[in-house]
Amino acid sequence: MNETGRPQDFPLSNPRADRVRDVAKLAGRPARLKRGQFLAEGPQSVREALRLHQQRLAAGAPGVVHEVFASEACLDRFPEFDDLAAGTNARLATDDVLAAMADTVNPQGIIAVCGFVDVSLEEVLDAGPRLIAVLCQVRDPGNAGTVLRAADAAGADAVVLTGSSVDIYNPKAVRSTAGSLFHLPVVLGADIDEVAAACRTRGIGLLAADGYGDLNLDVLQDENAARRMAVSGTGSAYALENPTAWLFGNEAQGLSEVELALADHRVAVPVYGAAESLNLGTAATVCLYASARSQQGRAPASG
Amino acid sequence: MNETGRPQDFPLSNPRADRVRDVAKLAGRPARLKRGQFLAEGPQSVREALRLHQQRLAAGAPGVVHEVFASEACLDRFPEFDDLAAGTNARLATDDVLAAMADTVNPQGIIAVCGFVDVSLEEVLDAGPRLIAVLCQVRDPGNAGTVLRAADAAGADAVVLTGSSVDIYNPKAVRSTAGSLFHLPVVLGADIDEVAAACRTRGIGLLAADGYGDLNLDVLQDENAARRMAVSGTGSAYALENPTAWLFGNEAQGLSEVELALADHRVAVPVYGAAESLNLGTAATVCLYASARSQQGRAPASG
Repeated sequence: MNETGRPQDFPLSNPRADRVRDVAKLAGRPARLKRGQFLAEGPQSVREALRLHQQRLAAGAPGVVHEVFASEACLDRFPEFDDLAAGTNARLATDDVLAAMADTVNPQGIIAVCGFVDVSLEEVLDAGPRLIAVLCQVRDPGNAGTVLRAADAAGADAVVLTGSSVDIYNPKAVRSTAGSLFHLPVVLGADIDEVAAACRTRGIGLLAADGYGDLNLDVLQDENAARRMAVSGTGSAYALENPTAWLFGNEAQGLSEVELALADHRVAVPVYGAAESLNLGTAATVCLYASARSQQGRAPASG
Repeated sequence: MNETGRPQDFPLSNPRADRVRDVAKLAGRPARLKRGQFLAEGPQSVREALRLHQQRLAAGAPGVVHEVFASEACLDRFPEFDDLAAGTNARLATDDVLAAMADTVNPQGIIAVCGFVDVSLEEVLDAGPRLIAVLCQVRDPGNAGTVLRAADAAGADAVVLTGSSVDIYNPKAVRSTAGSLFHLPVVLGADIDEVAAACRTRGIGLLAADGYGDLNLDVLQDENAARRMAVSGTGSAYALENPTAWLFGNEAQGLSEVELALADHRVAVPVYGAAESLNLGTAATVCLYASARSQQGRAPASG
């Protein structure tokens, strides 16, 4: 390793080496749990992992990236990795080795072994969050990752997954987050009763996203807009600008009766056409964006 | 077949029969193009296909469902199929046969062979549409289906796919629409220049969804809300309540420069957090819902 972070030694070239197999095993949950590690694959995920890693080191905290494996071609194509990977345990590897390590067919030339990044519910709540997404029994890794990415885009302060949800460190879930897993705090294995009680104690409203909800998200948005524009007569069943935790349910069954009962209100995303419903990722995006817009009070910079 | 639609004969039981293989071949594009047919799998898709079929027959138009294959258990579980399938070419089949026919591992007991449902661009435009989603070079079947479902939920009048986009009759795309493929007109193989010219002729605004757009979707929504609430001083670069065609680009590259140049405006979904962007399905949902809300002027019934 030279000081720019570009590894100088010969590339790893044996796809059947123990070291390669050890990395590949992180596609499975038992190896992840045993070692407290997971895979970030592809330039976007690895870049965001390394950025978080460098931020943490700069703050005197432990890093998150344990190892990086990259092809020479990838490093030529994305020269920023020379700086980003400086000081990390980085190795060159052949495409065959990267393919053997990766869960994807095409890892795009770079893989990082990362340490778990999840935090405790207390840590999230102590920071005074204004917008939280809570995933209850979400089973599909792509859906969980998509909601996490949308929560990041909406500027949410955290994502909480209940204990019965999919493992967010599943490679497909990590890919679906498109790097957002390294952007905002994630709480895993949460107990929904504890989440609800803790939010209530701290004055965070609990909204259940529910197609059969009695409140209409568009009405809440209109009422918020009217308040922002100081139009009179704008009472509201729920003020979207308040600190809010949104509960999102299982993709097939939605929220259970027990989960619904924990919420302050059940809010429906209106359906203007003939569709029965929106899918989980799109419904969550609409809800989180509605809160974000209402909380910001004005439009942010576009990006 | 009795008059309630429940087939009375013995179930098809040989998964290697020619008839079963013929249905299974519809998972591939060559067979679909040759026969003008595609597969709808699972109760939700088949239900919506049959509803459209019966609506068309009632209107004196040709139906869309050519054959239905279902297990006895599925018909017991969803008794509405007895009425919906009345008068169609329906056959009982064993689970083995259904599994052999299906593209999914688990077809949930019912499969329909449907005729193509796409329509011409002229037919769509002659109906005076107010909201259209145009997919340009979208490659992933799940993304295309998700956008179609979101367009349906937002009450869009049509979805247009350009010639270089994924085949919407791909089984994964059909599944992702969750039945919405049978709810609103879909145009396939469109030429983007022709779409743009035709929209312009008819006074339909063209908005390009683009992370680097100069207009901010939230600003446009706020300006629309202000007009609806009759707040003064609310000029706007683009009035979201106008008839609009949204252009959505390829999931990896976004819209090409050529496609962007065809639009009246480039509009960014704002990113409040650290995410680089939203994924295609969620970005399209936010854009289409913003138009739908602005065009309706008030909130619809929730559903």
